[in-house]
Amino acid sequence: MARPTIGHLDSAFLRMMDEIRSMLRVVFRTENELTLPISGTGSAGMEACLTNLIEPGDEVLVLENGLFGARMADIVQRCRGELRTLRAPWGEGFGQEQVETALQGKKTKIVALVHAETSTGYRQDVPAIARVAHDHGALLVLDAVTSLGGIPVELDEWGVDAAYSGTQKCLGCPPGLAPISFGPRAETVLASRRTKPASWYLDLSMVRRYWNEERVYHHTAPINALYGLHEALRIVAVEGLEARWKRHEEAGDRFARGIEEMGLEMLVAPAHRLPQLNSVRIPEGKRDETIRKAMLDGHGIEIGGGLGELKGKIWRVGLMGSAAQPEVVDRVLTALGMTLR
Amino acid sequence: MARPTIGHLDSAFLRMMDEIRSMLRVVFRTENELTLPISGTGSAGMEACLTNLIEPGDEVLVLENGLFGARMADIVQRCRGELRTLRAPWGEGFGQEQVETALQGKKTKIVALVHAETSTGYRQDVPAIARVAHDHGALLVLDAVTSLGGIPVELDEWGVDAAYSGTQKCLGCPPGLAPISFGPRAETVLASRRTKPASWYLDLSMVRRYWNEERVYHHTAPINALYGLHEALRIVAVEGLEARWKRHEEAGDRFARGIEEMGLEMLVAPAHRLPQLNSVRIPEGKRDETIRKAMLDGHGIEIGGGLGELKGKIWRVGLMGSAAQPEVVDRVLTALGMTLR
Repeated sequence: MARPTIGHLDSAFLRMMDEIRSMLRVVFRTENELTLPISGTGSAGMEACLTNLIEPGDEVLVLENGLFGARMADIVQRCRGELRTLRAPWGEGFGQEQVETALQGKKTKIVALVHAETSTGYRQDVPAIARVAHDHGALLVLDAVTSLGGIPVELDEWGVDAAYSGTQKCLGCPPGLAPISFGPRAETVLASRRTKPASWYLDLSMVRRYWNEERVYHHTAPINALYGLHEALRIVAVEGLEARWKRHEEAGDRFARGIEEMGLEMLVAPAHRLPQLNSVRIPEGKRDETIRKAMLDGHGIEIGGGLGELKGKIWRVGLMGSAAQPEVVDRVLTALGMTLR
Repeated sequence: MARPTIGHLDSAFLRMMDEIRSMLRVVFRTENELTLPISGTGSAGMEACLTNLIEPGDEVLVLENGLFGARMADIVQRCRGELRTLRAPWGEGFGQEQVETALQGKKTKIVALVHAETSTGYRQDVPAIARVAHDHGALLVLDAVTSLGGIPVELDEWGVDAAYSGTQKCLGCPPGLAPISFGPRAETVLASRRTKPASWYLDLSMVRRYWNEERVYHHTAPINALYGLHEALRIVAVEGLEARWKRHEEAGDRFARGIEEMGLEMLVAPAHRLPQLNSVRIPEGKRDETIRKAMLDGHGIEIGGGLGELKGKIWRVGLMGSAAQPEVVDRVLTALGMTLR
C-alpha cells in the first residue's frame, strides 16, 4: 500500500484489477462474472447488495440474530423495501423449518442472512436456508464479512445469489474495501429494475462498467487500498484456501479448549461456533473494560467487547488471517489467565 | 499507509482521528464541528452531502457546467429531490444574475455548485453565488474536490453550508477518502429531518457519533487510508496553506504561458482557469489517444483525456500537490513539445 499511486486507468492498474477479480472468484468459490470490490468497508458492501436488488415495495425477509442482521433490516427500510424480520436470540441461529414457516404463503423477493455473525460468534448453516429461499422464489443475500477466507464459503455450490464481505477479517488485509459477488438470478433482477438504486456511488450498473473491459470511468478507484487487497488475495492463493480454512478451524478449537480448561464458558454451542470469532462469557465479578484495558496495555492484545444486548456480557476474541496460529492462541490464553488472576 | 493496522477504537487511533478533524478544519477554513472524512472517494462525499440534506420533494437547483455538476443532478433525483438545472457550456461558468433569475419566485432548499470543475478546468466564483442562494433562503452545497488545498477555499468567509472534497487532488494523498464539512444552517436541516437518508453507510447522524467523543461504532474505519490522510494534512500544515495556494498558482501560470508559447490554446479564459487542472485544446490533426499514450510510454507522464462532450477535444493536465512545481511544469511542456513534433 506504500507503493506509488498510479492512475486508475493506467494499463498496469487495469491488469491488477483483472487479477483481483479472478482471485475474488477463487475465494468466493464462484464463476459469477459480477464479482468485484466495492470502494468502501464491509457495510458499504451490505448496502451495495441490498440497494441494487431492492426496489420500493419489494418484500424482504431478514433473519436477525445479531447486530449485522439488524443493520440489514435498517438498510432494507431505507431502500423502501417491505421488511419482515425473523429473530433468533443473540448467540443462536435459524433452522430450515423456521424459515420455511416465515416464507409460507408470502411473496418474498429476498431472504437476507448473516453467515458469520461478528457480534456473537454464531456460525449459520447456509445451504439449507438457500434451498428454502429458492423453493419460495426468493433470492438469498449472504453476509460473508467475517467468514470469507476463514471458513468455507461456497457461493455456487450453495446457490447464494448475492454476497458481500470485508477485507479486514479473514482475508487479512486493512479495512476499506468490500468484495461482492452477484449470481445469475441476481443479475436478472438487476437487469429488470424499473427504478435507479437510491445510491449513485454503489450503483452496480455503473460500477461494473469500470471493472469490466469497458473501463468506463465511474469514481476514482482507491488505488493503494487495491494494491493491499491484491497482495492479500495472493497470500491466500499461495497458502491455499482449504489449508487456510483448516488453520482457522484448528486455532478456534485450540482457543475454545483453552477457555474451557480455564473454567470459562463460550457463548455459542460447539456445532455453531466460528473459529475466527470466539465469544467468551465474562465471568461473574470481572469488569469488562478493566480486563480489556489490561490486556491491551499490559500485553498488547486487543479483544473486542460485546455489542448491543451482549455489551458487558461477552468478550470477542478474533483469530483471523495471520492471527489464526497456535502460538497466538497460546499467547492470548496465557495473557488472559494472568489478567484474570 | 504501510504501518501496522491498529483497532478502530484504539486510543492511539482516536487521537489521530481528532488530529485529522482539526487539520481538515484548517484546510477548509472553517470552525464547523461536523467536519470529517467519509470512508469513500470524492463521489461518496458528494452523495453524503446530498443524501443527508435532501428529503423527498425538496427543491434543488444544480448549476451544471461539466461532468460533476451532471453527477450531482443524478444524485439529487435518486434522493427524490425536485431537480432544477441551470446549465452553462462546458469550459464556462455562472454569473450572479443568472443564478438570481433561476431562484426568483421559487422555493429552493439547496443550490449545488462545483468550485473547480475537473472535467473542464473552470474555476467558479463562489462567494457571489453563496450570497444569492442565501438571499433566497437556500443552502449552498459546494464541490471542492479539486480545489481543496490547491486554491483558496473559505467555507466560513464565503458562507458555504456544506462542502465535500477528495484526498487525491491537491491534498496530495492516495484516493479513497472524502473530507466533508457541514455548517450551522446545514446542521439545522440535518436536525429537522423527517425521514432517514436513503444511505445507511453515509448517514451522518451515525457517522458523526464515531468521529466525535461518543465513539459509537458505525462501520470499521479504513485505518491505513486515514494514516495517509493524517500525513498528507501534516505536510500541508508544514508548508502552510497560503504558500501551497501560491505554489499551485505559479505552476498553473507557468504551464499556461508555456502552452501558449507553443502555439497551443487553453480551453478556459484566463480569469477562470484552475492552475491545478489545465485544459489544453487538442490541435488540429493530432490524435488524442496516440499522443497521450506516447506521453505515458515515452515520458512516464500521464495526462487526462477529455470527458463527456469534450472527449477527444481537450487534454487535461493536472498540477496538483507535489506536482505543482516549476521543474514538473517544464518537464511536461518539454515532453509534450517533443511528442507533438
